[in-house]
Amino acid sequence: MTIGIVGTGNAAWALGKLSKNAGHDILFVLGRDEAKAIELAKELSSKPIVEKHEISAAPDITLLAVSDDSISQVCKSLAPLQLDTIMTHLSGSTSITSISEHHSPAGVVYPMQTLRKGSVSRPDCIPFYINATDAESLAQLRKYAQSLSTRVFEIDDEQRRKLHLAAVITNNFINYQLIEVYDFLQEQQISFQHLKPLFEETMNKFTKVPPEISQTGPAKRGDLNVIKKHLDLLKSHHDLYEMYYLFSKLIYEKFHPKEKFPKR
Amino acid sequence: MTIGIVGTGNAAWALGKLSKNAGHDILFVLGRDEAKAIELAKELSSKPIVEKHEISAAPDITLLAVSDDSISQVCKSLAPLQLDTIMTHLSGSTSITSISEHHSPAGVVYPMQTLRKGSVSRPDCIPFYINATDAESLAQLRKYAQSLSTRVFEIDDEQRRKLHLAAVITNNFINYQLIEVYDFLQEQQISFQHLKPLFEETMNKFTKVPPEISQTGPAKRGDLNVIKKHLDLLKSHHDLYEMYYLFSKLIYEKFHPKEKFPKR
Repeated sequence: MTIGIVGTGNAAWALGKLSKNAGHDILFVLGRDEAKAIELAKELSSKPIVEKHEISAAPDITLLAVSDDSISQVCKSLAPLQLDTIMTHLSGSTSITSISEHHSPAGVVYPMQTLRKGSVSRPDCIPFYINATDAESLAQLRKYAQSLSTRVFEIDDEQRRKLHLAAVITNNFINYQLIEVYDFLQEQQISFQHLKPLFEETMNKFTKVPPEISQTGPAKRGDLNVIKKHLDLLKSHHDLYEMYYLFSKLIYEKFHPKEKFPKR
Repeated sequence: MTIGIVGTGNAAWALGKLSKNAGHDILFVLGRDEAKAIELAKELSSKPIVEKHEISAAPDITLLAVSDDSISQVCKSLAPLQLDTIMTHLSGSTSITSISEHHSPAGVVYPMQTLRKGSVSRPDCIPFYINATDAESLAQLRKYAQSLSTRVFEIDDEQRRKLHLAAVITNNFINYQLIEVYDFLQEQQISFQHLKPLFEETMNKFTKVPPEISQTGPAKRGDLNVIKKHLDLLKSHHDLYEMYYLFSKLIYEKFHPKEKFPKR
């Protein structure tokens, strides 16, 4: 298939390289920053474009790999060209209408994975969530997504929004907890690597049993003494203190519904 | 070596079975609940004991596999027997002095892993953190722990407390996030399995690069629109709302230190 890419950030790089590796022909890379457009176009054996009027042929699919806030505006700016292409965004939290109000046909291909300019690990396992304004475009996008990955699912705006929210919690928030724990341990000259087996076990359980069954720890047991000692240890670590307090409170109150978690 | 076990819960089961598999001789299983003591003793080809006076021979190491709050009291109740044994607790957050004030020599063998009555996955990878009141006991505990696992580290009370705190955050809190996300997705009839590739990627990064480098998401980007939409979606999900708000605020303020995160 022929693909056009709008944008030069992480998502543009990742989808561009996946598409090229899958044998698609990248007709152009459109970006405001010429140097970046040239760099990515070179990587994809494609043509760098700065002005939209330089687009000479309409690709089967145009990927709008731009920030969520810009999708509607970029789409609007491309509308006068009346390209015969499935205008497609990659966003988990943006409605398909931000395209379809400016261009038809419209589509969504949302890759639920952290995408970076560098290599994507196990790209064939990235789940892709697709949607389109008509059956023919949906079939095209399915064909495209299936050329990149073995996991392609069709879902609507609302389900995609909820999945994206779940993904933010699972990925970004857990990552932030790890940042904070990393810093805390480094202060004590304790290597972060010590936590690896425990994290692996959390992960192993996650793939086997519902997490509700595997909850453990002081808040689950109702051990307020240990919780108090931990909070004392965290007095000078604002973010960790806040996380610790909130999670202990939520877990305690879930597993001990008749009791109240102590105030700070 | 000869081992005595006090307690019949998850830790008693896990350490008992690991010890037996490593070829140690479990002299007794002491538990208040006779049926449980008999069950575990049978599993370990050992002798069930309900009354401490039935202990006929002192083991090299006595493992106090009881709740953190009970360690001191159980140790005190055993003191009159004057056993020639290294009295050892398994707790991350309890000082060695809760034993040494009642019995000498005292030790700690803290396995930093979720232990359950059932099978322990990859037991040779469980990190054990040891301590003792004298060099000879420490050498004995090291020998014992090394017979169970390839990862044995000597650390003092304070470092162990901090590691335990980090473990609670890494394991229990992440598990709780997963519980909440699991329930949220189930309501939408979306399978939790969709999140597996993303969680694996979070984990892969964790073992390769410091998590600070791998932070992504709306709060990191400063995308307040997406954050607001997510919070709206979570209005009827109290726990998720609280987590989402706190994490977004902490991440936003870390990566955008000059700006204030909006009030609820």
